[in-house]
Order: sequence, then C-alpha cells, then structure tokens
Amino acid sequence: MDHSSLLEDLRNIVGAAHVLTEGDLSAYTRDWRKRAEGTALAVVRPADTEQVAAVVRACSKHGASIVPQGGNTGLAVGAVPDTSGSQVVLSLRRMDKVRALDPANLTITVEAGCILQNLQETAEAAGFLFPLSLAAEGSCTIGGNLGTNAGGTQVVRYGNARELCLGIEVVTAQGEIWNGLTGLRKDNTGYDLRDLFIGSEGTLGVITAATMKLYPLPAARLTAWAAVPSMQAAVDLLGLAHKHLGAGLTGFEVMNQFSLSLVDKHLPQLRVPFWRDYPWCVLVENSDHESEEHARTQFEGLLEAALEAGCVSDAIVAESLAQASTLWHIRESIPMAQAEEGLNIKQDISVPISRIPAFVAETDAALTREIPGVRLVDFGHLGDGNLHYNVQTPEGGDAREFLLKYEDRINALVFDSVAKHEGSISAEHGIGSLKVDKLPSYKSAVALDMMRAIKTALDPQGIMNPGRVLSTQV
Amino acid sequence: MDHSSLLEDLRNIVGAAHVLTEGDLSAYTRDWRKRAEGTALAVVRPADTEQVAAVVRACSKHGASIVPQGGNTGLAVGAVPDTSGSQVVLSLRRMDKVRALDPANLTITVEAGCILQNLQETAEAAGFLFPLSLAAEGSCTIGGNLGTNAGGTQVVRYGNARELCLGIEVVTAQGEIWNGLTGLRKDNTGYDLRDLFIGSEGTLGVITAATMKLYPLPAARLTAWAAVPSMQAAVDLLGLAHKHLGAGLTGFEVMNQFSLSLVDKHLPQLRVPFWRDYPWCVLVENSDHESEEHARTQFEGLLEAALEAGCVSDAIVAESLAQASTLWHIRESIPMAQAEEGLNIKQDISVPISRIPAFVAETDAALTREIPGVRLVDFGHLGDGNLHYNVQTPEGGDAREFLLKYEDRINALVFDSVAKHEGSISAEHGIGSLKVDKLPSYKSAVALDMMRAIKTALDPQGIMNPGRVLSTQV
Repeated sequence: MDHSSLLEDLRNIVGAAHVLTEGDLSAYTRDWRKRAEGTALAVVRPADTEQVAAVVRACSKHGASIVPQGGNTGLAVGAVPDTSGSQVVLSLRRMDKVRALDPANLTITVEAGCILQNLQETAEAAGFLFPLSLAAEGSCTIGGNLGTNAGGTQVVRYGNARELCLGIEVVTAQGEIWNGLTGLRKDNTGYDLRDLFIGSEGTLGVITAATMKLYPLPAARLTAWAAVPSMQAAVDLLGLAHKHLGAGLTGFEVMNQFSLSLVDKHLPQLRVPFWRDYPWCVLVENSDHESEEHARTQFEGLLEAALEAGCVSDAIVAESLAQASTLWHIRESIPMAQAEEGLNIKQDISVPISRIPAFVAETDAALTREIPGVRLVDFGHLGDGNLHYNVQTPEGGDAREFLLKYEDRINALVFDSVAKHEGSISAEHGIGSLKVDKLPSYKSAVALDMMRAIKTALDPQGIMNPGRVLSTQV
Repeated sequence: MDHSSLLEDLRNIVGAAHVLTEGDLSAYTRDWRKRAEGTALAVVRPADTEQVAAVVRACSKHGASIVPQGGNTGLAVGAVPDTSGSQVVLSLRRMDKVRALDPANLTITVEAGCILQNLQETAEAAGFLFPLSLAAEGSCTIGGNLGTNAGGTQVVRYGNARELCLGIEVVTAQGEIWNGLTGLRKDNTGYDLRDLFIGSEGTLGVITAATMKLYPLPAARLTAWAAVPSMQAAVDLLGLAHKHLGAGLTGFEVMNQFSLSLVDKHLPQLRVPFWRDYPWCVLVENSDHESEEHARTQFEGLLEAALEAGCVSDAIVAESLAQASTLWHIRESIPMAQAEEGLNIKQDISVPISRIPAFVAETDAALTREIPGVRLVDFGHLGDGNLHYNVQTPEGGDAREFLLKYEDRINALVFDSVAKHEGSISAEHGIGSLKVDKLPSYKSAVALDMMRAIKTALDPQGIMNPGRVLSTQV
C-alpha cells in the first residue's frame, strides 16, 4: 500500500487540517477504558456525507481499511485502530448537525456525529422526548449508538437504538451513498437494510445520518426505590409494575447488596436507602403524560399491591426531582464505586427475565465455589433482562495477579451459565474486538455462516473495520 | 429437473398424504383476490421444522424453486406459484403449535402456521395482549405476518410485526435450521438476521417459528368518532391525541366522505355518524391500563382541547363495547363497500404524517384533473402515516374498460406523488410479484444493489420464491 499517495488523496478530500497524522492522537487511537491502544495511518475528519464517500473510495482504491468512530466511548474495543499503523480512523465528530425536526411526524433527522445529549436537548427544547439514555450520553454520538445498537435505561419502554430509528443514510463499502433517511413508520419495499447496518459496528459501511423517533414529553417522571427480599421478588414486582403502570414504566433497575455497599463506602454522601438490611434493591421509574399527582397515585397502587404480595419489603417514592435524580445517581455510581474499589471484570449479559433468578443463583454459587474470594457486583436493567453481572477482585491481595489467574475461568463460568439459560453474552455493548474470539462458542454456526456471507457480499474487499464482530481468520 | 424423483423424495419426507398434486389445489395456487393463478408441481405440508429443512434440501438438490405460504391472504401476490408447474408450494399451515408462553418474560413462542387470531386468543386467555390486528386475522398466519412484516391498525402504539418479534427460527435456502428463537430484548451479538428475514417475503429462507412480545391486557378500550373539517385538522388532532393519551393511543384511523358514503349506501344498517356534513371522519382508540372511567376522562380532555383548537367539528365516544365495535366495523367495512360498488384500484402507500395533507390535496387534484369521472376512497391508518388511497371506477360506464385504459396512469400519478413526498409505494402489503416491476423506479439503485447482493449471498441457487421482491431479470 502506497501510504503517501493515500494521504495525499485524503488531504485533497477533507483538507489537510482534517487529516491528522502527527502529535497526540490517543483520543482517537486508545480505547477509553485503556484496554487497547493502536496506531492510525491517519485520523480523517470529513465535514459531510460526500466527503465520507470520497474517503471510503480513496481507501478502497488503496486497499486501506477503515475504522469508523463516533465518541470513542464504546465498551467492546470496536472503534480504535489496530497496531499495524495502516488503518484509517474515520471520525464522524464534525458531522454533528440537526438536519430537521418534524413535530407532526414525531421525528428528528441528525448527522452521525451529533452527541446524544445534544439530540436529547434539541428534542426537549421543541417539546419532545428522545428517550435513548445511557451513561456516556455527554460524549457518545448517535452514529455510534446506532452502529452498536446502544441500549441503556429506558429500553423497557422505548426499546434500543434500533427501535428508535426509522431511517439511515449510509456510505457503503464501495463509497456509494444510500439515502435511506425515511421518516416512515411503515415501509415494506424490500429487505430491511436499516436494521442490518444498525448494530453491525462499522463492519458493513458507515452510518452518516439517521431519522429518529420522538415522543411527547411526559408531564411527570417519578422514581421509587424499593427493597426486595429476593431476585424472584424483583421479577414479580416487575410483572406488577407492567400491570399497574402500563406504558408509564420507563425504568426498572436492580442492584444487589454488595454493589450498593460499594456506593455507600466510596460515595457515602449519596445515602443509599435500605441497602444494609436487604439483599436487593430496585429503582422504578414512572413517566406520566397526565400529572405528577396521577403518577404518585399510580405508584401508590403499585406499591400497595407489591407489599400485599410480599415482593416488596420497604419502599420510598422520591418527593422531589432532586431526590429522584439522587436515586438515579446512586444506580449510575455503581461502576465508579467499583473502579474506586479496584480492578474488576465487567459483564453485559442478558437472559429471559423469567430465568434471571435461577441464572443469578446458579452463577453466584458456581463463582463462589470455584473462585476463591470473589465478590459479585450484580446490577442492571432488569426491566429488559440485561444484567451487568460484574466480578470484583478479592479484598486485599494482588488484583492483577488474580485477574491473570482467573479472568478466563470467570468469563467461561458466566458465559456457559448464560448459554444454559438461553441468554446473550453481549446484551447492549456489542462484540467489537473484545468478544470476537468468544462469539463462535456461543453463537449458532448457521448464523455465523450467514453473517460471513453478508459481510463478503457487502464488503468484498474486507476494508470496513476488519476483525470486529467477525474474526478475519475463518 | 426430474419431477418424479423430487416428488418421491418429498413423499418420503412428509408422507404421501401431505404431498398434494391432484384435485382442486386452487386454495394454494390462486391469489385470494383472484389476480393470479398458478400451477404447483406439488403442495407440500410439513409437520415440523426438520421436515421443512428436508423439503428445502430436496428441492435444492433437484433445483426446484419453493414458494412458502401461510394463510394465502397476502395482498401483493407473493405466495402463490407461477404458471410453470415446476414450483413447490411449501404450506406451513400444519405447523400451528404454541410452543411456549412465558408470563414473566412477556413472550409467546409459536410455529409459523399459527393463525393470528389463535395467537391473540391464546395470549388473552393467559391475561395478555398480542396487539397485531388486521382484517385477515381469522385466516392469516404469524409466519406470513412476519414474512410480509404485516402492519394493521395498532401500529401507532405497538409497531409492525417486526417490532413485535424478538426471535425467529428459520430454515435457510441450504436447508439448514437456524435457531434464533431468543426471547431477549437486548442481544448485540452480530448482524440482525432476524429483521433481514422479516419482510423478505420468503425470498431468503423460511420462517418456521417465532418468539413474539406480549403486553398486559388493557383494563379498558374506548373508541371515539370525530368529524374533522380537513385532513390538516386530522393531523392536528393526532398530535393532540399523542399528548393527551400518551401510550394509550392505540388506533387512529381516517376516512373521507366518499368512503363513508359507500358504507352508508351498501351497509345502511351501520348508521355511519356525521358523514353527510363533514369531509373527513376520524376513529380514535384509547387503551387504558386503569379503568374505563379513567379512559373516558382522558378522552373528554382530548376532545375538549380539540374542539377548542378547532380541529374537531363534532364527536361521540362509544358508550358500550357494542357501540365501539360498530364504529370499528364501519371503518373495516370500507373495502367491502368498495367491492359492492364495483371495480377499484387498491393502494397501500405511506408518507410522513406532516406531509399527508399536501399529498392528499395534490394527488386528489391531479387525479380529478387527469382521469375523467374518477372517485377517490381515501382512508387508512393516519396514526402511522399509511393510507389506502384507493380509486373507484366512475359511476356507470364500463369499469373494466376504464381500468384497462387508466390503471397504469393512475398508479403512476399516485406513486410519483408518493415519491415527491418521500413516501413508500408499499407501506404494509409488501412487493410480492405485484409491484416487483415498479420497485426499481421508486427505490434507490444503491439499496437495490445491496438487496441483490444479499439475495445472492444467502440463496445462491435462487430457489427461494424467485421473482418476488426482486426481479429475476437484472
């Protein structure tokens, strides 16, 4: 590959100022959790879709592979280059415009580099809700959210990024532009290319813009915190919440005692409710299109029924927005408290909700039995069956040595239990390069064959984010 | 192709009684609207997924093409054989079992041949709602619904068949079984094969089973009927309904005066409200998880705001379930009233909701100007932007002659107007063979190229429902 000739082509397309090759490029080349650092031939920052298409055509001509990147906040090491120094990082961050907001159609059309929080705020300023919500929302982009089919905390009501998207604009691996930016809720004119690109982690093409669904802003959002006697009780409470709150149920998070003890230890000012006396706590959010009063009455009905049924031991309903946001803050502080406590292994698994109690009981028992001193940080989005079933290294001792010795064994124990319960080893983070070697053990060979056939059909040169999702060695 | 050897193989797989070659096979070979009649080499009725896989392998070995079929109620002539006499109709009707119902996971797993209404009733008997609802529900199958991504009347709240499906089991074009029957709401482990098969109309493989979402049964369903002064007023009313009813808004249908005049003429016992004095009427459905009283209060708030805003001229709220079902019956009788009135052209188009008033005004004007005596039956699912913008032949005169002379011109006028307004020429019915020649004029060439590449990748022999969705001539 003739690097200097490719660089010249790229400079001609986007301007020399937007082809970065010198200085500290670690914001683009290093995974933010520092699990991988690569070297880019160049970081290219196109200004519009035509430039993206021309960049892809130039890379195709020179046989250079392309790593599309949004906010570089991914959790599966899918958006940083490898160490070859021959890959081009295609950063979509300059393409951050809101192209259109259509109130009567309840849609907003934005470019891929738009920061999620900006999208949320633009929607809210126009009187609408854009419900996708996750920890990285201040720096992740909607293009990255779609590329990885991001989930987050509102999936129980609104679905993943996939379900919030009506249309996309894509630059194909051949450098052609597909304008699939439809705002239609019904369109049965051929294969669902939209959903094929969503979640493909940049391995089939580059999503450059999207038309997303909006919802009316709820009149009130109320948050409750409940102590529950068991995981089964938490599942029972979820069933009651569906019945009592209907579509008002917009969040349902579960946290075990140890995860809350870490928040209490490292962020004592947050005053975690109930955690000392109960094995599990649950956070429930009720979004109401009528009024706060109505939301409160609904919650009272739910909690009364739940206390009666024995699936709630104690509960509070936030009295103010400030208190509600503190409760959410406790839930969202678990990863930070884990980091304060030391090294840990993050999981992102899902199983059918009905099987979660058995999954947790069996997997807890297996890990405790086989891994000396292990500490389990079980928490996550119970409303959609997604647990961040994390493992903290033992108190004291050498955490690095522990991980070296046990990490593979722990992952195997967790993944095998997930497989037994018909779950997924990556619920919302994707495969990236982190789980690409694990996938063949946990995914049907027939499905993998079809994925490979599609990859070859749409990217015959294999230049789009190679080695991610699918291994390059067959 | 050695027909007798293939037939022998098929008899060995499913039993001679389930390989139909003699007698009246028109229930399988004739489109129910009688727009096409083919001849099958055989109609094969497998009992389970393994038999489906073996049938596909046998057809592949002999190079015979396969037409998958559910209830044969499709509207795009996609599920009957051609006239060659060499195609095998693969009827899924015997595979109609409910495999599992998981209350805590809110899912039901059924075989492809399960009749939609049986699925609805099984869900309801267990205390849940399966919301997919459409005119053919008494005879269409869930496999057909998924193959065509069926829509219907509840899409404004629950989405299409695609959005109601979590996992599918598929027999590939190679006769392999892919078990993708997951009940997970989050699973980011590779390309979205599920949504690729959904809506592919049997051209990529055969859907043999599916895991579908369930919802809590609403406590009450209330229906209102409103007269509105214009299509723009109907769109404004929809916006208010989203705000006032939130997720309670489960149906929003619009009907023009002429469509209601036909119901009044041919089914006078239905006593259509308001139609004489207003250009449009709207049917609104509110599903409430609390109570009928609460639903009524919600409706009163909506109608008060709408009368105030001038987007409703008059309105009634059904006082009983019987009255509500009569109102729905009026809406659903429009196609029958059209048939009574004589020949007509059916459309199934969508445009962004914000553009519907301009689309209807412009297209009405163009048709009235260019097609002498034309009568326009505008009605449909305004809540999701899908209109059945049908055209009735003129009163008196020779309807057949009129169609011969004007049908192509009418379709071109409507489709070109749809394209101008960034809409779809097939919102919920699919492409089948009926619109396969039209598609290249209204779909992006880049998208069509990707579709062809995927078809070739997954069905290299081209045996799955050839000539549907994609033309066999390139």
